[in-house]
Amino acid sequence: MSNPDEAATHNGDAGPSAMAFTPPAYVENPTPALGFGVSSITRRWKREELFNKGSLIARGFAFLLSLLSFIITASNKHGDWRNFDNYEEYRYLLAIAILSTLYTGIQALIHVNALWNVKQILNQRISAMVDFVGDQVMSYLLISSVSAAIPLTNRMREGQDNAFTDSSASAISMSFFAFLTLAISAVVSGYKLSTQSYI
Amino acid sequence: MSNPDEAATHNGDAGPSAMAFTPPAYVENPTPALGFGVSSITRRWKREELFNKGSLIARGFAFLLSLLSFIITASNKHGDWRNFDNYEEYRYLLAIAILSTLYTGIQALIHVNALWNVKQILNQRISAMVDFVGDQVMSYLLISSVSAAIPLTNRMREGQDNAFTDSSASAISMSFFAFLTLAISAVVSGYKLSTQSYI
Repeated sequence: MSNPDEAATHNGDAGPSAMAFTPPAYVENPTPALGFGVSSITRRWKREELFNKGSLIARGFAFLLSLLSFIITASNKHGDWRNFDNYEEYRYLLAIAILSTLYTGIQALIHVNALWNVKQILNQRISAMVDFVGDQVMSYLLISSVSAAIPLTNRMREGQDNAFTDSSASAISMSFFAFLTLAISAVVSGYKLSTQSYI
Repeated sequence: MSNPDEAATHNGDAGPSAMAFTPPAYVENPTPALGFGVSSITRRWKREELFNKGSLIARGFAFLLSLLSFIITASNKHGDWRNFDNYEEYRYLLAIAILSTLYTGIQALIHVNALWNVKQILNQRISAMVDFVGDQVMSYLLISSVSAAIPLTNRMREGQDNAFTDSSASAISMSFFAFLTLAISAVVSGYKLSTQSYI
């Protein structure tokens, strides 16, 4: 009579034997629930890792593209009227390309750090918020600068094609591809932000 | 000895009395979990209702604003060079205003219907996806058309202010406010889309 469980199982009375049937059901029940919980958590982790890598790659591409746009626009000086800084559209394009280069560069660095180091749980929600707002605002700014620069370039190229208009066109397309990658990144970080609160 | 539970409770032995302590814990445990579940579900419903109403209001405003932008741009004909259709920027602004009016009008109608009728569970996920993609693409198009039209208007107003440039400026600001409301609506529908899959 040292082990109470054993005593209950070997007891022939109706009362304790009815009690003895409950423990197996009570023990077996949690097992599938636990298995389901663990597998859904690992699936979640895998999905989050995929998203983290995906958004890091998207930001890396956006960084390269906006750096290219920045360099091409800034070096687009061919003398006389063919200087980018005579036109507010190109100055706007340059300003947004610089902003986007800085933003995506810093974001890529932060996310590379986050991949190697242990994450801080407390800051995750704030950083997800910053990611989403930053990506969204930056992609609106990029599409805005591209749209402002296109009509001017169009009008110039109706007259003639030269190194100046070609450089402008390539800077515009670089900014546009940077916009595309950042727009995708904004969707991913929006998803991450909205699922963050349920952890 | 007819009731096994009563028998276990009144039994003085160490074994059955240890067993008798578990049923109350086993019965009492689910109660707070159930209460928590129900309150979290009602909270979720309330939040979803708020979001539905909020996005309906945002779409209504976006519809009004893009309709205004459409009417102002389309009626912006003052003869000679002061016709909107001489400039590709204003034609683009008009085209996007028309698209946005149609999109937000149809969306508002669909959402008003959805508020009164019983919702179809099967279509919810698809409609959430359409909402999100539509809002996001439409807000990119609106900010793009606004950005394209601003530099031209700026340059014209440096020379002179007249009814033509003033109408252009007001159409641009209407489109900009339509962009703002649709951008907010895109964030809400993105949130709805990402929480939809867990119902």
